[in-house]
Amino acid sequence: MPRSDETKRETQSESHPLSTLFEPRSIALVGASEKSVWSHFILRNYADFGYTGKVFAVNRNGAAVYGIAGFTNCRSIGESVDVAFIFVPQSAVIEALEDAAAAGIRHAVILSSGYSETGPAGAAAQQELLASAAKLGVRVWGPNSLGFNNLSARAPVSAIPAVLPILPPSIAIVSQSGATAAELYEFAHSQNIGTSFVAATGNEGDVTLSDVLDYLVDHAATKAIAIFAESIRDPEAFAAAAERARAKTKPIVILKIGRSALASAVAKAHTGSLVGDDRVFSAICERLGIIRVHSTEDLINVAGLLASTGPLRHPGFCFMSISGGACTLVADGAEGNGVELPPFDETTQRALAEVLPDFGSKLNPLDVTGAAIRDPSLFERILPIVAAAPGIGLVAVSMTIPTTPGQGLPAALEAIGRALQIIDAPVVMAQTCVKALNDVSRQAIEAHRLPFVITGIDPMLRAVGKASWWSKRLGRPAKPLLLGQPPIAPRPLSTERAVLDYLAQSGVAVIPGKVVRSRKEAAEFANSLHESLVLKISSPDIAHKTEVGGVRLNVARAEVPDVYDSIMTQVAHARPDAAIDGVIISPMRSGGGVELLVGVTNDATWGPTIGIGFGGVMVEVLADVSIAPLPVDREEVIEMLLRLRGAKLLQGFRGAAAANLAAVADSIVNIGNAAIKLGPSVASLEVNPLLVRGDRVEALDGLVIWNENERTHV
Amino acid sequence: MPRSDETKRETQSESHPLSTLFEPRSIALVGASEKSVWSHFILRNYADFGYTGKVFAVNRNGAAVYGIAGFTNCRSIGESVDVAFIFVPQSAVIEALEDAAAAGIRHAVILSSGYSETGPAGAAAQQELLASAAKLGVRVWGPNSLGFNNLSARAPVSAIPAVLPILPPSIAIVSQSGATAAELYEFAHSQNIGTSFVAATGNEGDVTLSDVLDYLVDHAATKAIAIFAESIRDPEAFAAAAERARAKTKPIVILKIGRSALASAVAKAHTGSLVGDDRVFSAICERLGIIRVHSTEDLINVAGLLASTGPLRHPGFCFMSISGGACTLVADGAEGNGVELPPFDETTQRALAEVLPDFGSKLNPLDVTGAAIRDPSLFERILPIVAAAPGIGLVAVSMTIPTTPGQGLPAALEAIGRALQIIDAPVVMAQTCVKALNDVSRQAIEAHRLPFVITGIDPMLRAVGKASWWSKRLGRPAKPLLLGQPPIAPRPLSTERAVLDYLAQSGVAVIPGKVVRSRKEAAEFANSLHESLVLKISSPDIAHKTEVGGVRLNVARAEVPDVYDSIMTQVAHARPDAAIDGVIISPMRSGGGVELLVGVTNDATWGPTIGIGFGGVMVEVLADVSIAPLPVDREEVIEMLLRLRGAKLLQGFRGAAAANLAAVADSIVNIGNAAIKLGPSVASLEVNPLLVRGDRVEALDGLVIWNENERTHV
Repeated sequence: MPRSDETKRETQSESHPLSTLFEPRSIALVGASEKSVWSHFILRNYADFGYTGKVFAVNRNGAAVYGIAGFTNCRSIGESVDVAFIFVPQSAVIEALEDAAAAGIRHAVILSSGYSETGPAGAAAQQELLASAAKLGVRVWGPNSLGFNNLSARAPVSAIPAVLPILPPSIAIVSQSGATAAELYEFAHSQNIGTSFVAATGNEGDVTLSDVLDYLVDHAATKAIAIFAESIRDPEAFAAAAERARAKTKPIVILKIGRSALASAVAKAHTGSLVGDDRVFSAICERLGIIRVHSTEDLINVAGLLASTGPLRHPGFCFMSISGGACTLVADGAEGNGVELPPFDETTQRALAEVLPDFGSKLNPLDVTGAAIRDPSLFERILPIVAAAPGIGLVAVSMTIPTTPGQGLPAALEAIGRALQIIDAPVVMAQTCVKALNDVSRQAIEAHRLPFVITGIDPMLRAVGKASWWSKRLGRPAKPLLLGQPPIAPRPLSTERAVLDYLAQSGVAVIPGKVVRSRKEAAEFANSLHESLVLKISSPDIAHKTEVGGVRLNVARAEVPDVYDSIMTQVAHARPDAAIDGVIISPMRSGGGVELLVGVTNDATWGPTIGIGFGGVMVEVLADVSIAPLPVDREEVIEMLLRLRGAKLLQGFRGAAAANLAAVADSIVNIGNAAIKLGPSVASLEVNPLLVRGDRVEALDGLVIWNENERTHV
Repeated sequence: MPRSDETKRETQSESHPLSTLFEPRSIALVGASEKSVWSHFILRNYADFGYTGKVFAVNRNGAAVYGIAGFTNCRSIGESVDVAFIFVPQSAVIEALEDAAAAGIRHAVILSSGYSETGPAGAAAQQELLASAAKLGVRVWGPNSLGFNNLSARAPVSAIPAVLPILPPSIAIVSQSGATAAELYEFAHSQNIGTSFVAATGNEGDVTLSDVLDYLVDHAATKAIAIFAESIRDPEAFAAAAERARAKTKPIVILKIGRSALASAVAKAHTGSLVGDDRVFSAICERLGIIRVHSTEDLINVAGLLASTGPLRHPGFCFMSISGGACTLVADGAEGNGVELPPFDETTQRALAEVLPDFGSKLNPLDVTGAAIRDPSLFERILPIVAAAPGIGLVAVSMTIPTTPGQGLPAALEAIGRALQIIDAPVVMAQTCVKALNDVSRQAIEAHRLPFVITGIDPMLRAVGKASWWSKRLGRPAKPLLLGQPPIAPRPLSTERAVLDYLAQSGVAVIPGKVVRSRKEAAEFANSLHESLVLKISSPDIAHKTEVGGVRLNVARAEVPDVYDSIMTQVAHARPDAAIDGVIISPMRSGGGVELLVGVTNDATWGPTIGIGFGGVMVEVLADVSIAPLPVDREEVIEMLLRLRGAKLLQGFRGAAAANLAAVADSIVNIGNAAIKLGPSVASLEVNPLLVRGDRVEALDGLVIWNENERTHV
């Protein structure tokens, strides 16, 4: 039945510019043939998903394919078509695109491969393809993509096979890899997690995963979004969509691969070891409220859990089981996964004691022992008590879900199902080991009105920890990332003292000091100070001052003139070529305190990023660094400091005064802001050390390196 | 058919004292009744497993149960019975045991509960039960145990339900928890891993998991042993069985729970934080060559993998897939799991280039791309090449194993199966996500002669890392643990100097020094040294010397007499009660080097244990400590040092001389041996610091604490 574009548009979602692509009413399958494996997979989907739109087969002979009417080209279809799904050989793709455009088709999904994934020649072919598409006014999904299945609209444009039965929609799966999209979708199904949308974005020549993400934020059937990605091509769009998702309390979970490759691409800047690696992406996720995971199973489990529970109102988790072993496994694994198991308050314990008089302890995790097998009504009486306990945001109750007929204890499942009818708080079911839930399981779940089931103690704890983190993070809008900022002219921060003076102007407490240029000036300035002193050569040309005899520590006031002369002589001897600015005189800081290292670098993708670590062994041997995108605020910096493995050092280690965390944080916030003001042409700004002694926070040395490798001071 | 005891014994395995229990020819089910849930589970097993021995039902009425002949007691059976399986109410257990003994039954498996698992009253009841059994000459399995299924003998004495179909035997599962035993067995089945023996040892009143382990070492059908345990009751038997297993190259994998509870039981000794926790058990596993895991899934996966591959001849792993995403996931996760992915040598690369001319890189992991879909014979040509590559001990090839009919690519599976027929090295199959392998999967595996399948990239990497560790460890016999050593009379190591002198006798280089008792003696000794000095009060009564003015650093020779007087005066004033031994004079050590802390403690279960860490922040803030049971040798100590997170500090950090690891290790070996010679009544011996400067290793301070809390020196 031909429809006019107008009628069609009225009934489609108008909310998204790509809704015609994502919710197609009619699809031309360009390259369809009964001889092709791809055609087989693609066409079977229309029956399996129950697509209600129109499908046309396009091939050289205009032959019908598996009963679908055939046409020699798109123009001859004679009806409005929303999407051309192109899987002809590479050599015929542009011709197919031109035909589609001529037929008025504005969207193409291109499965054909041989493009940027194969190397430079392929990349050139992709450029040519995209240029053609742009000229023709056709948006392109792919190439080298298995397409997408919009399951909630029952609209497949994809070679990802349907997994049957189709479950009620819950999570969306977006993957750059097609094989992985199919595998994630299948794994979700095995966990009884319904998929609302599954997409393989392939080479992302035009439409990217950020576009899909943006669409899914408003996709009603999608309760959570799971992303499998190797690279984020458009960080601004990605960040914007993520922030919209946060505001709508729709969780995003991401498995970003290529960690190891990224880690080996060592950044060139001095402070590269601090931030020039994959940890920047983790910091971005932290900022954007995106849950980062590292396994395919976690990706699906976390999305599935949060799709089922929504944000958790309290961080506390309660686990109950008839198996003491399972309870101990949960107790063992909780802390490492960030799962809080709050002990029950007295009211809860009293209420439990009435139901379970013979129990010695009313601990969380709660071992209800075999008593609950003999008397399943215990579940009905216990669940409401623990679900109402203060601080508990999620309860998991462990009881076998059958996978073969006759397995498990139906009376216990029935009791759990009944209990859930009167409970408000989220309850899920747990299984000790990972298992695949099948039709038998689904029958039991439906019969007993059971909630979401998460299988495996370890996967459960990881998912609960992530869900809890996300729920806490949710209320905090993400500060916008500083992407695409205009360049600012470099300031001449050519010496240590110039950098420190610049930081001082930005509100950072810095060590006093002065560059002196004569023996006399040195003596005069030294006499104005009341401590023992440090003298250092000041030269834009000298990177390693100690090696040329340019540093003297612990100098008494009276010795200053001689030491001044000695430094000037030694440096002139060692580096006759260097331009000498003078000698910096500062007070000597000794006698304790904690040294921090604060470094800002500009990440090529994500913009300016700040790294904080403890000086010395902690950062150099252990790479113990907290990272965040700039700007940062006091609260965030305190969190970053406390996340360091050496955080104890700030809390009054070995009788030292505890650091004033707010003062330290304010200093670091100001360093970050000073770096931002230098603009994107600063490669790095580093303060090393930032000395902390109780309430006193003081930058002792500063260094700025510009992108042009203009080394302005060491 | 009645058999004489003699005939029976002849055909049974005589190798193990408990073989009659583990391989019963006849079983009396005491408490069997058609009304009992337990009876239902227990009896169904005889049909499900196809037990060929004799079964008798014993109950008050002598009623037949589900067609099994009934008797009112064991004595009236009138035939020889190997095992009485007792599941009567607790109050009737001892009577049942007496009846069984009177019938000549020597082994009882007791399911009945209400014993030590319930508290002190139950523990008393268990003592009574065990005393009766001992008097009657009956060995007891349990109580509070679900029993065992000896699957390879098709002999169930258990309420753990059979999981069908029964798979070819491969791994044994031994669990203290019954519910967990059943769940592990079911999970193994879902991974197509056959179980040879599944045991729930319950309260282990008599027969322990170490007994079962000892039996399984010689159980031919068992290729690997998976243990789920909360506590090891008989460490000597456990260690002996583990060493027998290692000698027979039979892997043991253990999930020992209660980590968190143990961690909270902080040891009382000074160095308790070093070794008084769950890490001791990890060190014991390391010593015994036992693989320790922390999830139920890993427990089964590792056992299943090693049961299939046996020891790996090389540590290198090769992964190949048509999915670049899967390859990147493997690359990302390898290092963290201890998996080596050696690059291919030139010969291998050339051979691959002939098969895959269009590929740019011949990396490991090897992405064979969709080319292998179009041409499955690629698998046949590639697999032999990578399997023969130098350093590769295990190859995993990823390709979908179907779980529903019609899924996957049979041609690819067929090609893989064909390739395996001509390959010698171990090859397994991988799946991107965890999945349950079912009958459809098994049909495909059988049809295509496919090898072991491990599901999920992450679980695969964890299992491969563990398998590789075990294979490397296998050739090293475990030194016996020092358990049950006779006590040795404490030596009077009452002061720092006495401890150092004792260490020096044991071959440890210690700082020179002398206890002086007068101003004159102080001056004389100081004049014999050529450095600046340290003076410290020597008193068995003073724990914290600095606090009482008892320590002076950096003392010049000329100042020694005055400083001596000053210390004596200050200490006498601060601690008039203390017995004063004199003042220790030693050279001052300053100017670099690395400080180690070496502590020996006696673990209540596992005997003397040595802990090594870096002094200062690394051990106090990060608890960065390597632990091993004593004795240790040079090679082990070097491994322990290199395992420290701060190991870099020994390798010439910041221009310092690299530590002579052999010299450091020898020093630590000697400290360990010195501690051993003090016997089990030493609570701790600590050297802090052990100063390392290149080749020079020197103990600067030593402390011994005796078990009686006799603090002999600080």
